[in-house]
Amino acid sequence: MEKISPLLARLIRRLTRLPGIGERGAQRIALYLLSQDDSETRELVRLLAEVREKLGFCERCGFYSESRYCPICADPKRQPGTLCVVEQPVEVLSLERSSIYHGLYHVLGGVISPLDGVHPEDLSIDRLVERVKDEKVGELILALSSGVEGETTALYLGERLAGLPLNVTRLARGLPAGSRLEYLDEATLSRAFEGRVKI
Amino acid sequence: MEKISPLLARLIRRLTRLPGIGERGAQRIALYLLSQDDSETRELVRLLAEVREKLGFCERCGFYSESRYCPICADPKRQPGTLCVVEQPVEVLSLERSSIYHGLYHVLGGVISPLDGVHPEDLSIDRLVERVKDEKVGELILALSSGVEGETTALYLGERLAGLPLNVTRLARGLPAGSRLEYLDEATLSRAFEGRVKI
Repeated sequence: MEKISPLLARLIRRLTRLPGIGERGAQRIALYLLSQDDSETRELVRLLAEVREKLGFCERCGFYSESRYCPICADPKRQPGTLCVVEQPVEVLSLERSSIYHGLYHVLGGVISPLDGVHPEDLSIDRLVERVKDEKVGELILALSSGVEGETTALYLGERLAGLPLNVTRLARGLPAGSRLEYLDEATLSRAFEGRVKI
Repeated sequence: MEKISPLLARLIRRLTRLPGIGERGAQRIALYLLSQDDSETRELVRLLAEVREKLGFCERCGFYSESRYCPICADPKRQPGTLCVVEQPVEVLSLERSSIYHGLYHVLGGVISPLDGVHPEDLSIDRLVERVKDEKVGELILALSSGVEGETTALYLGERLAGLPLNVTRLARGLPAGSRLEYLDEATLSRAFEGRVKI
């Protein structure tokens, strides 16, 4: 890379920090941006600035929103009374892409992890308990990551919600679709065994 | 996508226009940019603006450069007297990556294509002829695309340079590395046949 303009090299290096972008991809993006009209690039920059300025979080569920409530919370066709609890806003997008869920969401903002200095009061847990009561939630689906922190958070939520009239479920664990046993780690395999179902 | 903030959806759609970026990649990039400190994004934007403002072309060869001569032309270790002619600046990067060439470059800025309104005078051809004379070029390697326009351009350059004491060569044509015959198009195959060499 020392053969190219130091400024261009810096731009390319900076672009490789984007997720999923390697050096070659960064180079293509850099050259594309340079080959466009100034107005094209300026539009992208302006749009990014606008999103950063205007995009906040839904007051109700914590998903990205530019208005008080996000499009999901504001959609009368979504099934009320069911909440899916996720760690981060981006996970709402993943679930929405699968089109399998039609209820509402609640974004915690992370998982309990004392080692990283994340305690229950740092997460949107009080707000979740409030919503469960106010919105007469009948089922709470915990879609948390399956590591130790996710388990700890699930246990803590179970305690906080004990005594309220609702079902708390978590996502099934087992073999990912299209997987071959030989490539799976032991933890996934043993969970798939424990959770085996009659056919 | 109608489930997410229209502003965020617009940013993601805009990012899918980048080369090699699909919807999922665009989503990851958008969310990454939003999750960063404002200063991180601002640095990227500032860098891009700076590159757009300061990056020009090398006066001698036409490759990207922020100073009068590009790092390749300014490098005393590059072999003078050999010029590799490419269509676009980006192709210099591809050749540099392969580390196979140690001479200098000349960027034409395109190929002759009357249908697209590109005529010889729109390309850096006069400048090339000048360089061949001034720099006492002994070999000119045409690294042009192998379509009709590339051929036309090569023929035209041959005419313009006729009578000058230099070898004009072009890149070999044949099977790409690692290719299987069954997947190759007829034009590639027939050229590979025509150009067969004794072993």
